[in-house]
Amino acid sequence: MIPAFRPEQVLAAITPQARDEPDSGIVKAAMHGFTVPGVIPLWSGEGTAPTPEAFARPAAEALLRGETFYTWQRGLPELRQALVRYHARVFGRSFDVENFFVTSGGMQAIQTIVQMVAGDGEEIVIPTPAWPNYAGALRILGSRPVEVPMDFANGRWTLDLDCLFDAVTPRTRAIALNSPSNPVGWTASLEELTAIRDFCRRRGIWILADEVYARFYYGGKGETRAPSFLDICEDEERLLLANTFSKNWAMTGWRVGWLQAPRALGPAIERIIQVNTSGTPAFLQRGCVAALEEGDPFLAEQVAAARRCRDLAVDRLRGLPGISFEVPPGAFYLFFSIEGMTDSAATVRRLIDEAKVGFAPGSTFGPGGEGFLRMCYLKDTRKLEEALGRFARWLEVHSPV
Amino acid sequence: MIPAFRPEQVLAAITPQARDEPDSGIVKAAMHGFTVPGVIPLWSGEGTAPTPEAFARPAAEALLRGETFYTWQRGLPELRQALVRYHARVFGRSFDVENFFVTSGGMQAIQTIVQMVAGDGEEIVIPTPAWPNYAGALRILGSRPVEVPMDFANGRWTLDLDCLFDAVTPRTRAIALNSPSNPVGWTASLEELTAIRDFCRRRGIWILADEVYARFYYGGKGETRAPSFLDICEDEERLLLANTFSKNWAMTGWRVGWLQAPRALGPAIERIIQVNTSGTPAFLQRGCVAALEEGDPFLAEQVAAARRCRDLAVDRLRGLPGISFEVPPGAFYLFFSIEGMTDSAATVRRLIDEAKVGFAPGSTFGPGGEGFLRMCYLKDTRKLEEALGRFARWLEVHSPV
Repeated sequence: MIPAFRPEQVLAAITPQARDEPDSGIVKAAMHGFTVPGVIPLWSGEGTAPTPEAFARPAAEALLRGETFYTWQRGLPELRQALVRYHARVFGRSFDVENFFVTSGGMQAIQTIVQMVAGDGEEIVIPTPAWPNYAGALRILGSRPVEVPMDFANGRWTLDLDCLFDAVTPRTRAIALNSPSNPVGWTASLEELTAIRDFCRRRGIWILADEVYARFYYGGKGETRAPSFLDICEDEERLLLANTFSKNWAMTGWRVGWLQAPRALGPAIERIIQVNTSGTPAFLQRGCVAALEEGDPFLAEQVAAARRCRDLAVDRLRGLPGISFEVPPGAFYLFFSIEGMTDSAATVRRLIDEAKVGFAPGSTFGPGGEGFLRMCYLKDTRKLEEALGRFARWLEVHSPV
Repeated sequence: MIPAFRPEQVLAAITPQARDEPDSGIVKAAMHGFTVPGVIPLWSGEGTAPTPEAFARPAAEALLRGETFYTWQRGLPELRQALVRYHARVFGRSFDVENFFVTSGGMQAIQTIVQMVAGDGEEIVIPTPAWPNYAGALRILGSRPVEVPMDFANGRWTLDLDCLFDAVTPRTRAIALNSPSNPVGWTASLEELTAIRDFCRRRGIWILADEVYARFYYGGKGETRAPSFLDICEDEERLLLANTFSKNWAMTGWRVGWLQAPRALGPAIERIIQVNTSGTPAFLQRGCVAALEEGDPFLAEQVAAARRCRDLAVDRLRGLPGISFEVPPGAFYLFFSIEGMTDSAATVRRLIDEAKVGFAPGSTFGPGGEGFLRMCYLKDTRKLEEALGRFARWLEVHSPV
């Protein structure tokens, strides 16, 4: 082989940030787990229900009737109008169709935001533990995630707003807030959201809001969603929301999401979409319209099932020695520590191989995450019980590493 | 409205490169054209045939049977294996499954490449006229396209390799070559490809190859594809090929493509995919397997139809005064100049409004493109004749601007 084409030389020829970025611990767990037969996978943020036929069929039919050409870069007008109606129903707000942009997944919405607001060396402040893809996207693009660890004390997660605000520098372009949070389930109160809004206004920086799990909220007063920046922000606020069809409507594999933004950004967002994905399949968007317009009963069932699964998982984990966690008020994860565990990635691997149960390692979620494992509990109850049983039996005879 | 949320203030708060990037002239033409009833659209790079049912049905069935979960970040193993077989069949090479990565469209393959090889302020050299998305992706990401205009003289496009190589500086990370070329149809000879390969080897830079139109090649000896870097490069050469299912198999609206790369880059590419799209819908990939495995007859028909359309368009345009172009040996565009035209974007707009025929403006393809219009001729023959007739009648009474 020509020496320049040896693996180490090839790797030396890409950017340091692409070369040195760590692998996502979730993806690593999943890619390893896919090769081990019989594992019950709780590593990914998705349920066990496939997409309901009511949403899948309109997409399949549009595909078969030949809606297979290039389409609107900002998304089908019909889907953007359905997003307007959805937000009127759920948030009581009248947004404009030009506030919404269809993206190829929630991640692509975040990628679009980062490409739009954070240049080389600029910073976005992120409370952690957090989904590793925020920091990854920023680092690979040459920007810098500034991670502010939350506190876990007395079985409760809290975000110290003074610490968060102290992390903002002249290079900061945005505060990213994921509430309800993946992985810890922490959910900001209206007071906390208001404090962040006011700080961002004073400093002239963006709010990057990820409220993907807003509907998975287990309040005590029959709420159908968590507190939201949409409760307190102006129509054209410097607020960018990344969202997705994945979680609410069991459409993770579709890779369709949306971005909500001030209307003035329309042309810039359209250009970024054009050079990233050149749009999202029109035929898939037909299914997304059905999800928004007819998906309320399914979503209500999903959330009720998630609450039951959460209570089951909480009940089983509580009985185990050395396990500590907060009962999460939102999202669909349990983020639990195991006494004595210092290498969550190695423990995850052992659990996949030895116990045939798959979690995600806490270390992948950034500062404050090591020592914990993340479980997605939105699963078929029997599978979940089986997985928790396997974990309990493993803990009886093994120790974490 | 709070002053900070006025449009000009909102725009001031995004990166200069996202704010100041010009709109794609193709997208602008299409977005305007979508609002004008009865226009015959020749602005986009797609035919009039929808995806054949033989490729659409496996995808629709996979969707309906619930293959709707997160999937392999590098693509379904079955599709990557089908790509190995396709390349064995068409290029006579035995690549490894680990050389192929499924992406959400050819553009996403290019985006992945740029994120991997070009950091802030680094350069990629690109012959123009070229698809504007190369330069756009680079500029938005903070890298720099260095555009090297080709020559159009005596009705023929040529690329001066000395000029190309002279544009390479210590900041250059790659030469991007699109052959057969969109928009001009210019197709590199094996000698030209070899010279570029040797130069890139000497300088230790990447070859970024876009051979998306390789199968749309109208050679005189019954060739089934254009000369390719795959004819002359080593297995693990510093060569990155962006490709797509869009053109060969009439799947533009699917947004599925692939990236071919040295195996050593696997983990880096997987990480970039994860933070951009988090993978491509598994159910769509089932249709792509069908396209690769059963799509040869359809592709042969498409190419034969494209050749007939090319000959028809050439015949009609040749009769018009002030029109000049090369008969393109590849791709499916005619790139023709009109005497006296200095504002191709304005002319395109007038042609849409007044003649109800839609081209793309040459100016959007970079240096050397102004004064030309691009027509995609891969259309239903009758529509194409009608469009060319409208254009001819318009030219009789109007002048371009």
